[in-house]
Amino acid sequence: MNLYSGHINKLIEELASLPGIGDKSAGRLAFHIVHMPKDRVTRLASAITDAREHVHHCKVCCTLTDDEICPICANKDRDHRTIMVVENTRDQAAYEKTGKYNGVYHVLHGAISPMLGIGPGDIRLAELMKRLAADDVDEVIIATNSSLEGETTAMYISKLVKPTGIRCTRIASGVPVGGDLEYIDEVTLLRALEGRTEV
Amino acid sequence: MNLYSGHINKLIEELASLPGIGDKSAGRLAFHIVHMPKDRVTRLASAITDAREHVHHCKVCCTLTDDEICPICANKDRDHRTIMVVENTRDQAAYEKTGKYNGVYHVLHGAISPMLGIGPGDIRLAELMKRLAADDVDEVIIATNSSLEGETTAMYISKLVKPTGIRCTRIASGVPVGGDLEYIDEVTLLRALEGRTEV
Repeated sequence: MNLYSGHINKLIEELASLPGIGDKSAGRLAFHIVHMPKDRVTRLASAITDAREHVHHCKVCCTLTDDEICPICANKDRDHRTIMVVENTRDQAAYEKTGKYNGVYHVLHGAISPMLGIGPGDIRLAELMKRLAADDVDEVIIATNSSLEGETTAMYISKLVKPTGIRCTRIASGVPVGGDLEYIDEVTLLRALEGRTEV
Repeated sequence: MNLYSGHINKLIEELASLPGIGDKSAGRLAFHIVHMPKDRVTRLASAITDAREHVHHCKVCCTLTDDEICPICANKDRDHRTIMVVENTRDQAAYEKTGKYNGVYHVLHGAISPMLGIGPGDIRLAELMKRLAADDVDEVIIATNSSLEGETTAMYISKLVKPTGIRCTRIASGVPVGGDLEYIDEVTLLRALEGRTEV
């Protein structure tokens, strides 16, 4: 539509191509940006290009970082013999927020999904196996999501890791803390039953 | 929080300062941007700076435009003797989309709001009065929103326009087409009753 000026239309189009931003939000954002102070607009634009330019994958764990080796991998106080495998940097951040995990991570940047055509070669699995071969590792904790893709990936990883003799565990799935059984799906309920422990 | 790289944190912060984007969406967007092709990131960033740089107010109607005078004001086929007053460029676009209005516009860029401390001097009212004094105008159609601020502004404008002898009208407010009376608020129902016309 040519209701707005060319520059505004262009901006709306670019914003609407981002995930979770529809045409209406893109319009609202575009008009907000046009009315923002110039220095704030410059800051927003350079934050975008800088992040794309300067953020890359950690040489050890593949997480996104500004440095060659991320602060967690570079930290000598962390337990480098325990590696938690996660799907992405945001899942890693979720465990970091707990403040209770002292091991290191490996970030796959995806999960195996035959439906989407994502195979084992498309995620950072080769890098994980290289680490396991080169470093002294006691345990691999698989913390992929509890989705179909996450479970497939977990199964695949466990089959790769087992022959190495390294201990391989999977985070528990079950009823979330504070969850009301009444509202929890059957698969989770059965999973919680299977995973029951002695009290 | 320092869970992510500095550049990602900076980007999340800038994105989260935009309206309607919370911390979670900002995180999702930031990670999407880091994984976008470089040329698309450059296009997004320059769309942002270009819009802020090159979009300004039309010298006649004050709408946002790339040119000195917007395409509507520059169009000789439009009826320049009828001016519709709207709060912002998006409201103008809403009427343009109908394709049935052939007059021109005046964009106020806001509405009078004593609550928010926005007075008549903070919106483009002086520019409207200058137009009415300089040009031959037959009718001013007040199409501010049907909110408290919009109604206040409409009343204020009508008081300014009436002494000039120019016809001053207000768009009808009432039950939206397709609206079910059952779900419509009382104020709108009463407004629709007051505004009833002969059939």
